[in-house]
Amino acid sequence: MTAASDTPAYQKLLDLSRELALLQDTEALLSWDQETQLPRGGVAWRAEQMAWLGGEIHRRFTREEVGEWIAACEEAGFAEDSDEDANVREWRHGFDRATRLPSSLVEEFEKTRALAKSAWAEARQASDFSAFAPHLETLVDLSRQRAENWGYEDCLYDALIDDFERGARSAELKTLFDGLRPELVAIADEALSREPFDTARLAGDYPEASQQAFNREVAEAVGFDFSAGRIDTAVHPFCTGLGPRDTRLTTRYDESDFRSSLYGVLHEAGHGLYDQGLREDCHGQPVGRAVSLGVHESQSRLWENHVGRSRAFWERWLPRAIHYFPHLEGLTAEEMTRACNQAERSFIRVEADEVTYDLHIMLRFEIETAVFGGDLAIADIPGEWNRRFEDLLGLKVDRDANGCLQDIHWSLGIFGYFPTYSLGNLNASHLHAAALAQQPEIETQLAAGDYSGLLGWMREKIHRPGSRYLPRDLVTRAAGAPATPEAHLAHLRGRYLGA
Amino acid sequence: MTAASDTPAYQKLLDLSRELALLQDTEALLSWDQETQLPRGGVAWRAEQMAWLGGEIHRRFTREEVGEWIAACEEAGFAEDSDEDANVREWRHGFDRATRLPSSLVEEFEKTRALAKSAWAEARQASDFSAFAPHLETLVDLSRQRAENWGYEDCLYDALIDDFERGARSAELKTLFDGLRPELVAIADEALSREPFDTARLAGDYPEASQQAFNREVAEAVGFDFSAGRIDTAVHPFCTGLGPRDTRLTTRYDESDFRSSLYGVLHEAGHGLYDQGLREDCHGQPVGRAVSLGVHESQSRLWENHVGRSRAFWERWLPRAIHYFPHLEGLTAEEMTRACNQAERSFIRVEADEVTYDLHIMLRFEIETAVFGGDLAIADIPGEWNRRFEDLLGLKVDRDANGCLQDIHWSLGIFGYFPTYSLGNLNASHLHAAALAQQPEIETQLAAGDYSGLLGWMREKIHRPGSRYLPRDLVTRAAGAPATPEAHLAHLRGRYLGA
Repeated sequence: MTAASDTPAYQKLLDLSRELALLQDTEALLSWDQETQLPRGGVAWRAEQMAWLGGEIHRRFTREEVGEWIAACEEAGFAEDSDEDANVREWRHGFDRATRLPSSLVEEFEKTRALAKSAWAEARQASDFSAFAPHLETLVDLSRQRAENWGYEDCLYDALIDDFERGARSAELKTLFDGLRPELVAIADEALSREPFDTARLAGDYPEASQQAFNREVAEAVGFDFSAGRIDTAVHPFCTGLGPRDTRLTTRYDESDFRSSLYGVLHEAGHGLYDQGLREDCHGQPVGRAVSLGVHESQSRLWENHVGRSRAFWERWLPRAIHYFPHLEGLTAEEMTRACNQAERSFIRVEADEVTYDLHIMLRFEIETAVFGGDLAIADIPGEWNRRFEDLLGLKVDRDANGCLQDIHWSLGIFGYFPTYSLGNLNASHLHAAALAQQPEIETQLAAGDYSGLLGWMREKIHRPGSRYLPRDLVTRAAGAPATPEAHLAHLRGRYLGA
Repeated sequence: MTAASDTPAYQKLLDLSRELALLQDTEALLSWDQETQLPRGGVAWRAEQMAWLGGEIHRRFTREEVGEWIAACEEAGFAEDSDEDANVREWRHGFDRATRLPSSLVEEFEKTRALAKSAWAEARQASDFSAFAPHLETLVDLSRQRAENWGYEDCLYDALIDDFERGARSAELKTLFDGLRPELVAIADEALSREPFDTARLAGDYPEASQQAFNREVAEAVGFDFSAGRIDTAVHPFCTGLGPRDTRLTTRYDESDFRSSLYGVLHEAGHGLYDQGLREDCHGQPVGRAVSLGVHESQSRLWENHVGRSRAFWERWLPRAIHYFPHLEGLTAEEMTRACNQAERSFIRVEADEVTYDLHIMLRFEIETAVFGGDLAIADIPGEWNRRFEDLLGLKVDRDANGCLQDIHWSLGIFGYFPTYSLGNLNASHLHAAALAQQPEIETQLAAGDYSGLLGWMREKIHRPGSRYLPRDLVTRAAGAPATPEAHLAHLRGRYLGA
């Protein structure tokens, strides 16, 4: 066992990580600015700037000597579970993935994506899957080649998932989803059979400035640090980290309904709290970096759903909402809670409520694994999609734009991404339950509008470890057991069935 | 004579220019974001990002092979007055300046600046020049060394001016200023003796949103293209170009007086129109780049003062101002024009009106040339400043903070910069007069609120040539003669004395 300070190669990797972080954060600013500020005339030049930076980051990280430094560190060996050990593990993983693709494949993939994206947009517009199918065929083929180059143990699709959820396996996801599906369908059926809340009772004006003030109050209360962050407006809400003390959220405003911007902010603030909870002293190193999408999404869903749509939340915040939107006077906290937890059958994933959402995800996961497993031809996707959709959600898909053409991901060559949304939901419920079990006082605190206990638990167990452990290990260590469907089902039963 | 396409070295320099432009525009975005968006926690990391990019740009431009490419182009020789000829001339100039400083001097200068800036801020706070004097002494000494390394013909100070105004000479500036001074003092004395407009008549509320709407209308009318630009808020207004179609202005708002934000926007829009008028196809090359500060400032002063403070402007815009600020009802265009052209004796340059402004500049120019000429010791600056200030402006300086400590420039090691402000004023008047002489219809157009004739003239004569000619040559070609004090004095007499 060697001390890291005795290994000059380790110091070189630390220096490189810092340099790459400077570049990556610059790239993130270029992107944030594009989504929130850039005049439309500036788009072409911005694309060139981002391509240059992306290329430069890749070149610097894939230099031969970087591989030699990593090998020297592996040779030296560092204490198990140390920062150094985790950093070297992740550098190796990233280096291998970045260097194993032949540049001809990288180029062809990029070229195909660029064409596929506009083909998808047109095909969705015309609701005609066949116009997109040849592009999808090529992207699936190229993705197979990528996966073959990266390597995998059991199943090719695992190599694709790994880009978004380190170490996750489709077999394990399948088990999780198989356990979740029948119960979820039952809860959804039951919730959908109940009388919905009459949302006409929320009707009225919600001026953007009032929404901003209310959202900011809520975001500050849950712990988002505005001295190290901000909220802006964007068409598609997101959260991005631009540096150790610069985390930016976005949301969008509907002046006839405050819920969209509020839950947008709470969702992105969940991501933002994770970002603000990472170790500043390790910025740019794997141990100072969020571990996966499935864990990131657990934090956003926790604050959006578990906290933000709870009865306790509205007991605390309804008076403030009425202060900003006086026409809400007369609603009770119980009614507002119902208004924010409405189950509904719908075609579109991004509009789905918490109870039907994971059914949308399972459908995509099943289609993707069938395609990459060789069990489903591209041409047969729409038929298969529609059949399964009706099974799961009880709706007959009327057109491809409302079915298999609705999401942009495939057109970007992104496969293996969707499951992380459901992992996020499962992790959120699992971690929330664990936090309450380990520190029962959190429940009382939440009822009093004190979010510090819950945030403190997440800070310690989830945020500060960064990528020290693989996502599954991190969650297991935090909660004492790996995530199962149980906690999430219990959460949904409580929220939607009052059970 | 060779065609550029026969010279591979020229193509390499074009490619390098484009790459450096991508980086410089990224650096400009980091800086714009810092002034307008950055959460305060993000400042330290941002400084590292900017230092990294600045260093990378310097490294890439000063590589030995770049010098070889330039030499190969010089060897080849291109047609006089061609893009290629001008580019090679300016690349040579920039390369020599960037490579002639030993890195020890660069480092010492940077270190001294960092210390001097905070020392200056404290000294100004305490209004104690002696606390800043040792830093200034060192910066002047290091600037001498920089100038010696760069080289000069007649006078060391010329090498410093050259950073801001290519090819300008202090002897020529001295002649200009000597011709300007007595007349300017006479106009100022006369203007200051007149009854000022009673600004209490403007008193009222000017909501920020109304100011923004009014300013935007005016900026659009003079030709600022919002599909390739935007206006934001910043403590110190500025304009910055972030790419071929991305020009950003900033201003600040005083809700008790609309003039500050309006003239801020018109000034910065003048800079912005220059930026938007540069050749997109040469972005990053010298011929696609603004030529100097003195020419840049001529464009900002033209739109701010010549256009924006004119009687014709208010004849056109007073009804719109009243629309946004109804309490202005009852004022006449003549009164509003007087309200926007008030002469006043004041200590602070940045608050000075158009007629006294250049007196502030001359004072700084005289002090700087005396210091670098060895005729004035650092310790004697306050006494000399105060004596000359009273001579020129008739006010007894009460404290160093209101005198020689007021400006930040010296603390940043910036010497030779101030004269470009007055060059900007002289050039503005000279070019405006030339445009009217060459195209008399411009005057009628301006009265009708049609700014396209004046802008078109500037586009053709000043913007599109970029850095093809040295600043003095550019102005001479545009106007038919080099700038003299005459046009500016005539402008001020007309504006302030009604003569």
